Amino acid sequence: MPSHPRDALRAWFLGPRAENAELLERLVVEALRDHVFWRRNYHPEDGLAIRETDKRQEGYEENVATLTQELMGLLAELKRDVPFFSGRYKGHMVGEQTIASQIGYFATMLYNPNNIAVEISPVTTRLEREVAEQLARMIGYDPSRSWGHLTSGGTVANFEALWLARSVRYLPVAAAGAAAELGLELPVRLPGGTSASIVDLPLWELLNVTNHDTLDLWDRLWQSAPRPDVQRALANHSLAAIGYQEYSRRLALDYGDPLPAGVVLVAATAHYSWEKIARALGIGSNQVVHVPLDHHYRMDPDALWEQVSALARRRNPILALVSVCGTTEESAVDRLDQVLQVRSRTERELGATFHIHSDACYGGYAAAVTRRADGTRRTAAEIRRSVEADWPSDDWVTAVEALGEADSVTVDPHKLGYVPYAAGAILVRDGRTRHLVATDPPYLSPTEGSASDGERFLGRYILEGSKPGAAAAAVWLSHKVIPLDERGYGYLIERTVAGALRFHAALATADLSPFRVVMLPVPDINIVCYVLCHPSLATLRAVNDFNERVYTRMSLARNDGSPEYIITRTRLRSPAYDGAVDPILAGLAVGSVEEWKAGGAEGLVVLRSTIMDPFLAAPSPAPDHVRGFLGALRRACAEVLGKGASA
Amino acid sequence: MPSHPRDALRAWFLGPRAENAELLERLVVEALRDHVFWRRNYHPEDGLAIRETDKRQEGYEENVATLTQELMGLLAELKRDVPFFSGRYKGHMVGEQTIASQIGYFATMLYNPNNIAVEISPVTTRLEREVAEQLARMIGYDPSRSWGHLTSGGTVANFEALWLARSVRYLPVAAAGAAAELGLELPVRLPGGTSASIVDLPLWELLNVTNHDTLDLWDRLWQSAPRPDVQRALANHSLAAIGYQEYSRRLALDYGDPLPAGVVLVAATAHYSWEKIARALGIGSNQVVHVPLDHHYRMDPDALWEQVSALARRRNPILALVSVCGTTEESAVDRLDQVLQVRSRTERELGATFHIHSDACYGGYAAAVTRRADGTRRTAAEIRRSVEADWPSDDWVTAVEALGEADSVTVDPHKLGYVPYAAGAILVRDGRTRHLVATDPPYLSPTEGSASDGERFLGRYILEGSKPGAAAAAVWLSHKVIPLDERGYGYLIERTVAGALRFHAALATADLSPFRVVMLPVPDINIVCYVLCHPSLATLRAVNDFNERVYTRMSLARNDGSPEYIITRTRLRSPAYDGAVDPILAGLAVGSVEEWKAGGAEGLVVLRSTIMDPFLAAPSPAPDHVRGFLGALRRACAEVLGKGASA
Repeated sequence: MPSHPRDALRAWFLGPRAENAELLERLVVEALRDHVFWRRNYHPEDGLAIRETDKRQEGYEENVATLTQELMGLLAELKRDVPFFSGRYKGHMVGEQTIASQIGYFATMLYNPNNIAVEISPVTTRLEREVAEQLARMIGYDPSRSWGHLTSGGTVANFEALWLARSVRYLPVAAAGAAAELGLELPVRLPGGTSASIVDLPLWELLNVTNHDTLDLWDRLWQSAPRPDVQRALANHSLAAIGYQEYSRRLALDYGDPLPAGVVLVAATAHYSWEKIARALGIGSNQVVHVPLDHHYRMDPDALWEQVSALARRRNPILALVSVCGTTEESAVDRLDQVLQVRSRTERELGATFHIHSDACYGGYAAAVTRRADGTRRTAAEIRRSVEADWPSDDWVTAVEALGEADSVTVDPHKLGYVPYAAGAILVRDGRTRHLVATDPPYLSPTEGSASDGERFLGRYILEGSKPGAAAAAVWLSHKVIPLDERGYGYLIERTVAGALRFHAALATADLSPFRVVMLPVPDINIVCYVLCHPSLATLRAVNDFNERVYTRMSLARNDGSPEYIITRTRLRSPAYDGAVDPILAGLAVGSVEEWKAGGAEGLVVLRSTIMDPFLAAPSPAPDHVRGFLGALRRACAEVLGKGASA
Repeated sequence: MPSHPRDALRAWFLGPRAENAELLERLVVEALRDHVFWRRNYHPEDGLAIRETDKRQEGYEENVATLTQELMGLLAELKRDVPFFSGRYKGHMVGEQTIASQIGYFATMLYNPNNIAVEISPVTTRLEREVAEQLARMIGYDPSRSWGHLTSGGTVANFEALWLARSVRYLPVAAAGAAAELGLELPVRLPGGTSASIVDLPLWELLNVTNHDTLDLWDRLWQSAPRPDVQRALANHSLAAIGYQEYSRRLALDYGDPLPAGVVLVAATAHYSWEKIARALGIGSNQVVHVPLDHHYRMDPDALWEQVSALARRRNPILALVSVCGTTEESAVDRLDQVLQVRSRTERELGATFHIHSDACYGGYAAAVTRRADGTRRTAAEIRRSVEADWPSDDWVTAVEALGEADSVTVDPHKLGYVPYAAGAILVRDGRTRHLVATDPPYLSPTEGSASDGERFLGRYILEGSKPGAAAAAVWLSHKVIPLDERGYGYLIERTVAGALRFHAALATADLSPFRVVMLPVPDINIVCYVLCHPSLATLRAVNDFNERVYTRMSLARNDGSPEYIITRTRLRSPAYDGAVDPILAGLAVGSVEEWKAGGAEGLVVLRSTIMDPFLAAPSPAPDHVRGFLGALRRACAEVLGKGASA
């Protein structure tokens, strides 16, 4: 009988008291010496560049002294850093890193491979490919058809997703131009199921070919004419080549109609970086349209259908829809299965379609909860027995399983993968998509561009260039030691959810009088949000100020720099949170929904605790940080109000 | 008298034979234990989460065994990685890392700060700011007026530079719209020196306000109306908000003229990622226009003037000009001083202007060569005495000093800064530029956006979000130990140039008969390029094949996996290299310029060796890798031709 992961869990991290210090030190020294002996064994006949006598020179000794001195200074400064490792840190989405990822990063950093190309990362490029396949399998993609890679983080991963989506959605227009130029008869399948020649299609239909049919069209285009001809024709017609300004002008000429500005629908909870991404891509932040939320902070599928059909009626193309799996503020998991149904209905009833992206930067690793050791899916009931709680719901499991149907998914190993920064990832369901954004480096030979040899150069397909192979090795080693299923990450995340549920329940029922706490709903994963109030606080602004001050006292911004516990906060604003906050405002009983809406940027300050600590759920033998937290919160409230009153 | 940096140099790196292994191990263990004791001392009353008895559980022991086993497997695999540390590696722009950066990265990674915001990186955000100031000072910016930060690499840094450039260049159009909407009289200075009200300007003049005057205009706009009004008006008019499609349409309506597609002029040697960047930004790769080269692979200022004046005559706006300091293929340093003169003349004679960016991702650190310990500039003669060679020319120093006049500069610490991946950097001369791309995270309070408190959140101003504080600490510690002047990086880079000059001279004069080598010019920094030929090779394609095969034999792609020396190669293609390759083709005496041009993507294969090894210049006491290389090259040539003949 295999051992229970509860025992293994205790070997995964250095530990809040560095309980596994000996283990980590042994491995670090081992990796370092192993590297040292590699250097010594590489052409030993080369002799020494640095002799022992060199080390006795004054300049050498001075420099070693400087290095030691400055390092000691740095180490001293780092003591003022944030104790993410401690159960007392209940703030942002960052906790400890796995020992495997720390040692994997360090060991590989000594070699400093660059995953831009196999030539300078023969080992770690393969590890990156394996990591992408592991993540693909976890979320339900077929690794032989999908494609993915690591990025420096979620923003770049999401940027690439929207860049790829735009490239796919606009390809049929470019293909129509190229086909006309080359005199080709290119058939294409329409959402209704019929087929037509691409050159005969009106603009609206060109903008509504499904992703899959678009990629088939892409393949067919390259098969229909010699490679240089297709290249030249695409350079005359693709958005990537001619740019937005010329593209818009061309369409107005060719179709008697300028291209209506493509819209990106995003869950109203989506990360603020989507606005940044739309700006940088030239799409424009005004084209980022929020989809309203339900009371669980999830995208409302009915509202989505209404928006989609209104846009389709106006013949306004939708580039992409961004659903969220694990919102950064509340860890809400959108009903992606229902979102997919809305798209099916859109295709069936309206002849329109769009790219579906799941921003699972935060929640993606939670898909490991749904996997058995053999890779099959666990039922919701099976998971609930393991968590020993009323989580997850059947709907949650259905929503997470739907990740495998999204066109693209982003997931950050440096969040719930517990690896050091910087490691994001993007996965696309149909790997052919990557060819639409390929840019060739100068040294590829003319044939390599088309051959599988092009795969030796990851830099062709991605936004970034040079990138650390060490990050790939860190994630790879972590996945080897902590598998992406119920024995590994699945168990780890279950424990954090169990901790979050315990934390939520304790806060909801705590006696904080004269203070009161209003809870956001039980989280879908492990971020708990709450608002504090007091009878003396009569306005929304007063409540906001109070919570902002409690936050300050429970952060490193506190005057004495040593808070008992550390939390963070966010602001829920109108109109993004219109569908969600009514119960909270009602619970606070100060400030109406109208007042909140009129407040605009003022919004509603919400305290926020990400539970990444796997030890919180079981109070023993570790310190009971739930009880400890409640005491600290009570003291912070009293201090703030005392201070506010005397000020 | 201070010691000579030649002694200190021997303490900067682990060393090709890991000569400094004891030093690195001592510091690594010190940093790890220091971190361990921080954890132990943080609220010691919290007790243990992992007890000694837990470590005796089967699951714990199994997991430690798995971790150890998998790590050993990884370490074994890494032996097939590239020996960048060795003098035998003469390929891409990567060598050893400084001990300071390795230990700085490792020590800080244990804390895992995230430089997106001060709240989760109180120490390393400050270090990143210091690094940006150090780099700014090195290139000649005033650190109190400029702004900069680290990125995941050169591509993201260059992306941001062009994104910022576009935001500045198009601001006057948005400001005119906003001023009209708000009924403001906004004066703006024109390149000719006169001033006019922004609402009265025709489109061409709006597109040709200098960067500095545009940023003054930005300040004036915010001072002229209440903040929410300006915000709203900009959301109705800025490209960032309304997107390219609406922007183009609006201009056609407002000015009776669609916005002509903005062009980005780039040195023909510029990195291929500029094409990728223009695609992603929606500018379009067809708008990336190459500026011809001279025989030294530098941008030709006369050709630039011709292009600029032709564009201005056609009233085609120029968004930006990208000059290169240290091209990735040849390490050529553009005459940036002359490029700046072309812009002055353009402003004076044509009433047009553009953003000037220097892509100094590779060569930026070479500016350290021009700095004395007290920060003043060294003369060219002074540097030549130190290098003991005919390098650098007075013109080189003038060109490098001109970096301080560019509007933006990118420089990669993970290239000539000798730090581990990933670390790029962008610097902008006028720090106000950053406000044009700011996106606010949800938790900033309404007042914070405008206040200096917004600076606590770097994520507002940059493309990326979460980013490793460890990278900032690595660069910071490296700069502390190896200063950015003649005592530190300046000396280090001098030594690599001296090595490159020795390597170039040795190759140029080597007797390789029956083979012959045709050299590219003496490099501006430290990348040596050369082409091999043999009397039996009668066509350009045959020469290319031969060089490609020599490369393969001198790379890890070699059958037995153990080349004596490792090099790389690139392809010089028409039209980018039209102005540069004539002497090489003449030297080869096979294939005319016309044949080369007609070959298109086939191009000219050029072997390439980046000299990052500071020990190459002095053959003793280290092994003489110049002599060793010549022998290996001779053998590789003979093997390839023997093999080719028998195949």
